[in-house]
Amino acid sequence: MSKEKKLPTENYKGTRDFYPDDMRFREWMFRIMKKTVKLFGYEEYDAPLIESFDLYKAKTGEEIVGRQLYDFIDKGKRHVAVRPEMTPTLARMVASKNRDLPKPIRWFSIPNLWRYEAPGHGRLREHWQLNVDIFGINSYRAELEIIQLACEILFAFKAPKNSFKVKISHRKILTGFLKNTLKLDEAYEQAVAKLLDKKNKISKEEFEKDISVLLKNPAEDLKLVYSYLESNFETLDNFSGIDSEVISETKKLFSELKSLGLDECIEFDPSIIRGFDYYTGFIFEVFDTNPENKRSLYGGGRYDNLIGLFSNEELSGIGFGLGDVTLENFLKSHNLIPEIKKHNTIFIPLLDEKLFPNTLEVANILRKNNISVDLTLEDKQKLGKQISIAEKKGYRYLLVLGEEEASSKKIKLKDLIKREEKEINLENLIKEVESLFV
Amino acid sequence: MSKEKKLPTENYKGTRDFYPDDMRFREWMFRIMKKTVKLFGYEEYDAPLIESFDLYKAKTGEEIVGRQLYDFIDKGKRHVAVRPEMTPTLARMVASKNRDLPKPIRWFSIPNLWRYEAPGHGRLREHWQLNVDIFGINSYRAELEIIQLACEILFAFKAPKNSFKVKISHRKILTGFLKNTLKLDEAYEQAVAKLLDKKNKISKEEFEKDISVLLKNPAEDLKLVYSYLESNFETLDNFSGIDSEVISETKKLFSELKSLGLDECIEFDPSIIRGFDYYTGFIFEVFDTNPENKRSLYGGGRYDNLIGLFSNEELSGIGFGLGDVTLENFLKSHNLIPEIKKHNTIFIPLLDEKLFPNTLEVANILRKNNISVDLTLEDKQKLGKQISIAEKKGYRYLLVLGEEEASSKKIKLKDLIKREEKEINLENLIKEVESLFV
Repeated sequence: MSKEKKLPTENYKGTRDFYPDDMRFREWMFRIMKKTVKLFGYEEYDAPLIESFDLYKAKTGEEIVGRQLYDFIDKGKRHVAVRPEMTPTLARMVASKNRDLPKPIRWFSIPNLWRYEAPGHGRLREHWQLNVDIFGINSYRAELEIIQLACEILFAFKAPKNSFKVKISHRKILTGFLKNTLKLDEAYEQAVAKLLDKKNKISKEEFEKDISVLLKNPAEDLKLVYSYLESNFETLDNFSGIDSEVISETKKLFSELKSLGLDECIEFDPSIIRGFDYYTGFIFEVFDTNPENKRSLYGGGRYDNLIGLFSNEELSGIGFGLGDVTLENFLKSHNLIPEIKKHNTIFIPLLDEKLFPNTLEVANILRKNNISVDLTLEDKQKLGKQISIAEKKGYRYLLVLGEEEASSKKIKLKDLIKREEKEINLENLIKEVESLFV
Repeated sequence: MSKEKKLPTENYKGTRDFYPDDMRFREWMFRIMKKTVKLFGYEEYDAPLIESFDLYKAKTGEEIVGRQLYDFIDKGKRHVAVRPEMTPTLARMVASKNRDLPKPIRWFSIPNLWRYEAPGHGRLREHWQLNVDIFGINSYRAELEIIQLACEILFAFKAPKNSFKVKISHRKILTGFLKNTLKLDEAYEQAVAKLLDKKNKISKEEFEKDISVLLKNPAEDLKLVYSYLESNFETLDNFSGIDSEVISETKKLFSELKSLGLDECIEFDPSIIRGFDYYTGFIFEVFDTNPENKRSLYGGGRYDNLIGLFSNEELSGIGFGLGDVTLENFLKSHNLIPEIKKHNTIFIPLLDEKLFPNTLEVANILRKNNISVDLTLEDKQKLGKQISIAEKKGYRYLLVLGEEEASSKKIKLKDLIKREEKEINLENLIKEVESLFV
């Protein structure tokens, strides 16, 4: 037996085991996220983790499909994949029942997602991601609701208003500038957009050298580019060729977001790009303001043709995705993670084998009243040892039933934090225990 | 555009899409299961859906690994698999931290599981399964708790006591009978056990013909087999060679289960087998008593060497697994599925574009008080149309704010089921709305 080769106990690389302490934390995060989106009338959906490979080949970016997808051939010779993102599935589900679904559709999900990545800070192969989407509202009011919700989720975790910034732009502001102000040919538009997107990751010299090759009149146009990047939505009118309706929608959106008290959390930023091919309207990205975690937390935007792959119907949507690892890093960076204790489980030690029926009876009475109980099943350990196990398990309250208490219909309630105990009558048990948790 | 080939909207075969109505039902089931096991002090865990293939090769049955496993080679050339069951992962996690985990360990999980099966009634390729396990208690008291819990879960769904039966046996009763009463060689033990297991699925003639080949003295031994199958734990002493300690533990277990009021739900049945190689002590299986769904709902048992694949430490456990599809079929067969409505979401229609700030303000006040609100974002539809959408979405209560109400600080509350409405003062809004949900 002992000579057998033993299997390793490690989990698959780039993933996490969730022991009860980890799971309590994860459930705490999910509970707050779900509660917040439900307050806005969003309904939860889910779908199988494995989908046809074709779904991703069609919708998901090259990099993911080629290098990061967990795809394989199933035992029936179908090419399938473990989902790397929820949006293709969402589009498939909405397209399938579009005619029967009353609009607007407000849906959310917290899917488990898989990408074959080199694991690193905040980047794992398996993660969970809150996906929130609204379909069927063409006006900026959908943006208003989605951006409010994106903020409310962080507020629900007690994030202060200055802990994050939602940077907002509109795809048509950028394309208007590229096409009409810079008068770029279509082939150059995307190349310039990509350069603007990575501007902060490269040196000024490199940026100017690379962009000059793409501009029609490098000297003048570079000035325009810098002035565009520094513009706010009130100075956008200065650029020729940016759709005035879009500018006016942007102004309305900002004005209504301000009325919601979100002034401090939002910022117009024409430099944000986000998936050039994918989004067609407003786009936004939420950044942590903590200099030690200065990264994009999450983002989203409007897509006008999500279900176009499946049907000829048109349906415009806007949504965002917030990953659990990213959120955890944000909460840590602002010290927003509370201690999540098990103080609402009562522990009942066993002092003597013959008292087991009595302790089990007490346990079952408590359970019938929705109070969780962990009780000792065998009298193998002294009370002191049982108490130290209770402490190790994170329990705060103990109910101790000795022979004397059993015969006098009393029980001892011990508080392991306050180091206090009191005797209570069994008839007051529920009331006394419930009062511990209010 | 319209000439493009469109992608199909079907999900992968043998799986389910969970639209919000389906999801609400699933969450309702999960919530009741979780609440019940938490009342017994069980803690939730989770783990990555993809594990090393070796984990299953070592622990999971031949049929699953060879024919039903979703295994493949990842992009780093590792042989991996999507989990078909949770137990190997559970064993890995417990083995990894065994020394640090205070005993007993009471854990549960509701993992998503995948098996490549021919989809059929109650059998899908993807399902969820409540897994409940306790480790570190060697006596029948762990069985007592686990069987009580298995019953309490069904009671939590309002299942009557006569709607299911827990059939209980002990592996050592069977092996004692095979080895010592029938005096079978080890090689024949398993063959006879397998025959006993499928006895009710084949004809009496076939059973007797097949078993006679395996028995030492077919004529006499067949009588013993029949009398064994009809025995209860009080007549087990009549068979020579069945461990008397096991018989005495069985008696204690039944007596304590009866004290819990579970008499009607339990039954000793020496014919139940369940994974001959796997379980080492008590085994049990829960059957639906409805003649139209007369199938095994779920079952479990004790395994003494779960972590032996990973370490030389010994740890005995007992657990069970209850699938979501199986549970749903049981609930349907006993008419235990309630209507799960969205009556606690308030719907606020929009009568006029200029009233939007007012309706949004009302919505946000309600949300701050933990009341869910779905509000209309654009004034594109008449009130009648908006109400019919609200009904289609399953809402019961509407708050209607017209110009008159807005100026007089009042709002109309409509009940779509009772077809009533009343005017309330905005200052009483929260109190009035909260009173709808008590």
